Amino acid sequence: MAAQSTPSGIVQALPGGASASVRLVIANDAYALSWTPDLDRYLSRIRRLADSAANEQLDAVVLVPGPDLLYYAGRDQGSYERLTALVIRPGRDPLLVVPALEAPGWAQTTLAGALEVTAWSDGEDPYKLVARALPRVAKVAVDDHVPALHLLKLNAALEPSQVRLASVLTAPQRRIKESEELAALAAVGRANDRVQQAVSQWLRPGRTEAEVASDIAAALVHEGHAHADFVIVASGAHGASPHHGCSDTVILDGDPVVIDIGGPAPSRYNSDSTRTYCLGTPRDPDFAAVHALVVAAQEAGFQAAVEGASCASVDAAARRVIANAGLSEHFITRTGHGIGLEVHEEPYLVVGNDQPLLPGMVFSIEPGVYLPGRFGVRIEDIVAIDQSGRPMRLNASPKTWTLS
Amino acid sequence: MAAQSTPSGIVQALPGGASASVRLVIANDAYALSWTPDLDRYLSRIRRLADSAANEQLDAVVLVPGPDLLYYAGRDQGSYERLTALVIRPGRDPLLVVPALEAPGWAQTTLAGALEVTAWSDGEDPYKLVARALPRVAKVAVDDHVPALHLLKLNAALEPSQVRLASVLTAPQRRIKESEELAALAAVGRANDRVQQAVSQWLRPGRTEAEVASDIAAALVHEGHAHADFVIVASGAHGASPHHGCSDTVILDGDPVVIDIGGPAPSRYNSDSTRTYCLGTPRDPDFAAVHALVVAAQEAGFQAAVEGASCASVDAAARRVIANAGLSEHFITRTGHGIGLEVHEEPYLVVGNDQPLLPGMVFSIEPGVYLPGRFGVRIEDIVAIDQSGRPMRLNASPKTWTLS
Repeated sequence: MAAQSTPSGIVQALPGGASASVRLVIANDAYALSWTPDLDRYLSRIRRLADSAANEQLDAVVLVPGPDLLYYAGRDQGSYERLTALVIRPGRDPLLVVPALEAPGWAQTTLAGALEVTAWSDGEDPYKLVARALPRVAKVAVDDHVPALHLLKLNAALEPSQVRLASVLTAPQRRIKESEELAALAAVGRANDRVQQAVSQWLRPGRTEAEVASDIAAALVHEGHAHADFVIVASGAHGASPHHGCSDTVILDGDPVVIDIGGPAPSRYNSDSTRTYCLGTPRDPDFAAVHALVVAAQEAGFQAAVEGASCASVDAAARRVIANAGLSEHFITRTGHGIGLEVHEEPYLVVGNDQPLLPGMVFSIEPGVYLPGRFGVRIEDIVAIDQSGRPMRLNASPKTWTLS
Repeated sequence: MAAQSTPSGIVQALPGGASASVRLVIANDAYALSWTPDLDRYLSRIRRLADSAANEQLDAVVLVPGPDLLYYAGRDQGSYERLTALVIRPGRDPLLVVPALEAPGWAQTTLAGALEVTAWSDGEDPYKLVARALPRVAKVAVDDHVPALHLLKLNAALEPSQVRLASVLTAPQRRIKESEELAALAAVGRANDRVQQAVSQWLRPGRTEAEVASDIAAALVHEGHAHADFVIVASGAHGASPHHGCSDTVILDGDPVVIDIGGPAPSRYNSDSTRTYCLGTPRDPDFAAVHALVVAAQEAGFQAAVEGASCASVDAAARRVIANAGLSEHFITRTGHGIGLEVHEEPYLVVGNDQPLLPGMVFSIEPGVYLPGRFGVRIEDIVAIDQSGRPMRLNASPKTWTLS
C-alpha cells in the first residue's frame, strides 16, 4: 500500500468545537460544497496509484467511468456499452482510450493536457487498443466497476495476462480523505443536518410518505446538495425494512418514522444521515425504549471508533448494546460504510473486517433495530477519524424522536 | 439461441396508419405508458431463458440488478457492493440470493411467490451461496452488467467452472419486443414527439442551453415520462460534440441547435429522438445544406431497415449519403442503437454487425454530421420492424429546422 496522506488544519475547525470556529467553517461551506481538485491534485493522486501499482509489480491499472475515474480524473461519465478506459502505468503518462464521440467532453477536463489520448470509432476494437499499450504478458488491475461486458473482452484481449481487482490499490488511497475532502464531507453533512432539523415542517399526520419525501428532497437541494440521491421515509411497519423508500401510505399520529436521507454536493461528496422520529405519542409501547437503545448503540459505536481499532470492533461495540437487550436478531445490517464520492465505499464496518481505522477515514455508524410488522429504528451519523485518532461526528442534528 | 416471439396485433395500430387508428392508439397511451408485465409474462420470459441455457448446455444464468433483472423479474434495484443474484436454472425454480435487508423489497414484487429465496447477512459470503446451488463443475453465463467486484469473486467461488456473458442468451430475447413492449415504446415515442413539436416555446435567442434544457426536462415529464434521462441542447459549435449535454452558453440568433432528448415512461421503456433546429437565419452558410443531407441520410437508413437486412447494411445506407457529399469523416458515430428498457441496447447499427433485422426489433436511426468549431446536425427517429418486415417510425415530429 502507498503512503497515506493525512488530513490537516481544516479538520480541527469541524463541528464540536466552539461556536466561533463553527461559524467560521459555515462561512466557508459554499467553497467546500463545490470544491473540486485542481490538476496538481489529480496528478498526485495518479502518481500515488502508479507507485502502488509498481510496488505490486503491476503493469497497469485500468479505470472506467464511475467513482474511481471521478477520483483520479474528475470525470465519471461514459457510455455503458462503449469502452472508456484510463490506463495508469508506472513511469508513463496515463493513457485514455475513449470513444471518438466522447473525446470532446474529455478535452474540456482539468486533466486533458496530461493525457495520452487514443480515440476509437464505432466498429473498432477498443480492447486491443488497451492491450497494445501494455507488455505482451501484463499484470493488470481493473476497476471494481468494470462490467462483465468489458471485463471478459478485455481479459481475452490481454491473454495470457490475468486481471485482478484494482480496489486493493485504489481503496487504500480513497478511504483516507484529504483535508479538502474532509471539509467537503463536513459541509454536505451540515447541509443534511439542516434538513433533519427542519423535518417537523413536513412530517405531519395525514401526509403520505411520498409527500414528505418530496419536500425533503427539495430541502436537500435548497440546503446545498446537487440533488437528493435517496430519501427514505418509512413509517410504521415500513421502518422494519432498512431499504424501504417511500410509498403512498398516509402517516398517522403515533407512527414511528425512519428518515434516512442524503445525496451529493456539487463537489460530488455525499451526505447520509438517519433519524427516527415519532408523531405524537408512540402507538407501540416499546418504541421509546428501542429508540433509546439504538441511540446508545450508536454512541457505543462512536466511542469505539478510534485509530487502530478494527472496523469489526466498531460493529461489535454497537452490536453488543443491542444484543445485551436481547434484540441481536433484529439488528440485521452491518454497522456502517465508508462514504465519499460514493455513498457506500470502503471501509465497511462489518464482522470479519479486521482493517484498522486510520486518521482521515470517514464512515457511517448506523445501528438499527427492525421489528417486522411493527416498526424500525435506525440512527446514523457520518463519523471521521481526526488527526489525533479520535472520532468526530460530521452530523450534529438532535437524536430525539420528538418533533417540535 | 431460443425461438423468438413476434409482435402481434398492437403493432398494426401504430402511427403511420389511418388517423382513426392513430387516435385509438393515443387513447390507449395512458395504459401503454405505464404497462408492466404480469406474473405469467415474467415466468414465460424466465422459461425461455432457461430453455436457451439448456440448449447451450449451461447450468445457470446469473442476473444482477440492472436491465436484465428488470426484464426477467420486474426489479432493477440493489446495492452495488452487496450481491443480489437471480440464478436461472433449467428445470428448477429461479433462486434469488439477496442481502437480508433487501429481502422485504423483493417480497413485494410480482414474482415473489415463484422464487426460491436465500437471504444473506452482512459478513456472510454470497458467492458461495450461488456456487452451492450449482453443480461442482458448472457452466454459467453471467449478466453483462455484473461489476468486476462481484464477477471475479463469483468466478473464484465457481472454480473450476468458467463464466461467459449471458447476453448471448438474453439479448436475442430482449431485442425482439413483445407487442406490449412495442406499444409502450410507441406511446413514449409520441410523448417525446409532443415535446419536440413544442420546442419553439422554449428555444429562443438570449436563453441559455441550460434554461432550455430545464424547460424541456419538465415537458418530458408533463407529457408522460417518469423523468428526463438526457436532454442535450447543443448550440453552435457545441453541436459538433455528439454527447455535449448543455451549458450556460447563451443561444444566439442564427445558431443551429441539436436537441436530443428522452427518458423512460413509468413502464420503464425509453424514448429518444433528435432534431436539429436553427434560430432565425442560419449564420453558417452550409447549415441548411448539411441539414438536408442528414435528413436524406436518415431517410436512406430508414428505407434500408427491412427484415433480413443486416444491421451493418443500415449503417452503410445512411453513411453512403453522407460520404457521397464528401463528409464521411464528419459522421463519427454508428448509425443507431436498439432501445427498450435501456436507452442503448442491442441491436447496434454499426459496421461489422452482420446480425439480420427481424420483426419486433426497435432501434434508433441517427446519422449526423459534426463539423468541429462550427456546428453539428443529427436527426434521430426510433424505428421498429413491423410484422410484415417493414420499418415503421415511432417518432413523427417534423424534421424541418425552422422554428414556428
